[in-house]
Amino acid sequence: MQFLNFRQGLQQGLAVGDGKTFTGLLASDAGYPGSLQSLVKQGPDAFAKAAEALRKGAAIDLAKIDYLPPFDNPGRIFCIGLNYVDHSVESGFEIPTYPAIFSRFNDSMMGHGAPIIRPKVSTQLDYEGELVAVIGKPGRYISKEKALEHVAGYSIFNDASIRDYQRKSAQWTIGKNFDDTGAFGPFFVTSDELPPGATGLKIQTRLNGAVVQDASTSSLIFDVATLVHLLSEAVCLQPGDVIVTGTPSGVGVARKPQLFMKHGDVCEVEIEGLGILSNLVADEQ
Amino acid sequence: MQFLNFRQGLQQGLAVGDGKTFTGLLASDAGYPGSLQSLVKQGPDAFAKAAEALRKGAAIDLAKIDYLPPFDNPGRIFCIGLNYVDHSVESGFEIPTYPAIFSRFNDSMMGHGAPIIRPKVSTQLDYEGELVAVIGKPGRYISKEKALEHVAGYSIFNDASIRDYQRKSAQWTIGKNFDDTGAFGPFFVTSDELPPGATGLKIQTRLNGAVVQDASTSSLIFDVATLVHLLSEAVCLQPGDVIVTGTPSGVGVARKPQLFMKHGDVCEVEIEGLGILSNLVADEQ
Repeated sequence: MQFLNFRQGLQQGLAVGDGKTFTGLLASDAGYPGSLQSLVKQGPDAFAKAAEALRKGAAIDLAKIDYLPPFDNPGRIFCIGLNYVDHSVESGFEIPTYPAIFSRFNDSMMGHGAPIIRPKVSTQLDYEGELVAVIGKPGRYISKEKALEHVAGYSIFNDASIRDYQRKSAQWTIGKNFDDTGAFGPFFVTSDELPPGATGLKIQTRLNGAVVQDASTSSLIFDVATLVHLLSEAVCLQPGDVIVTGTPSGVGVARKPQLFMKHGDVCEVEIEGLGILSNLVADEQ
Repeated sequence: MQFLNFRQGLQQGLAVGDGKTFTGLLASDAGYPGSLQSLVKQGPDAFAKAAEALRKGAAIDLAKIDYLPPFDNPGRIFCIGLNYVDHSVESGFEIPTYPAIFSRFNDSMMGHGAPIIRPKVSTQLDYEGELVAVIGKPGRYISKEKALEHVAGYSIFNDASIRDYQRKSAQWTIGKNFDDTGAFGPFFVTSDELPPGATGLKIQTRLNGAVVQDASTSSLIFDVATLVHLLSEAVCLQPGDVIVTGTPSGVGVARKPQLFMKHGDVCEVEIEGLGILSNLVADEQ
């Protein structure tokens, strides 16, 4: 199932579809099943029941809605750094033996189609196309073997980064949390529609149409199952927790000359089976 | 004003007092003003009005309640590392020119009196006594001069850290976010009761009664006004955002021999004017 979390006018809505055609319901409609955030907490059958209800809803005119992040208020957003060998090398780091983990605040996110904002204080706004895994079943000390049973589905993230702030100290968090820099969407695709662990998917980032990142999710150093396993050593993972799995090589800061995003640019991240996450870049007003 | 966010039986309550005697209301009582989390979003008069209502409430028997974190669901918890010169030196880092910023997830927190949990996977559970500032007024690009107008009040944090996980990569986040490791409380004290920026306050951590950290908040490298100023370059700060300002020297990992917390220990953090945050340490079951 592919779900689309959206706003139409002042109302939130949820739709189900195939990436092109969607039918759905608004929050005020009879039978509205609730947001993905509430559904994911209701257990394994909730998505299928919701899809059934949403298929009876109205056709959604994608030109008339605002896309919201599929999960707009996650309990936790774990972000993984240096999770592709080539990116680790281009960033000047050793190949990690344990993932570099930082986090994003919910307030830093926006959906497909909303602008990524380049703040007044920096010109070093960089793209990072990434695969997202969303937890569907709670657990602590989850084995690698059982880990994928805990993943409800997948989506796409553009973990846009303010590079000079990211490197003002050894901790990257602030450069990863500027307002309106984390694009998430366009859809949420349930695990059953993808290969186990979402491996083997082509992941590509394009800036104004030019390919700037081009890899396969098979190249993740720590794959989704391993990330779930390792994170669950620290916390009891909860439904709706989001794991942003890291970016391939090709980021702007590592290029010669460097390539940063500027007002008017369009950045697209495409992952096979998950759609295209596209965002305009705009200078902060 | 000193506020106490608590649970009694299954109900949340809020009380006002002087650090020793409190009167308050439960969520089901007539006149309950709401949680601190909701009050802080209502503007500058909300705390005074709430205090007036709470003073008409019942006397609170502190032995019969569970203390909750004063703000139990913050939008953002910014944590600052290496913010005292002596601690930066003992940790083997240069004196920072920009704060090291990481974050905590809400799920990692508990209140005064609840156990700090030492997880199965590590014996390196360390204490970190810290001053907390809570944002009361929204703002982006806040000047240092105006910064303290944006601070609603203060509290105490024990940023208990799993040192081996903190140092598995260059990013500290995972070692700072184990379940049930961040103690926050016991009270929330409004800014008007403290020196501007909460400077000049004695801050002391005791493990089983022995003083292990002993400093003054005047020794912060980046004081509260500076932190508000710098963080507001990245984000529009929102009421209820929490800034955990960093720990003085004396942490267990930097001692020779190292001193880690273990089952049955009692760790207290005391800050002048803010009370004593005390937590038992317990092994994960």
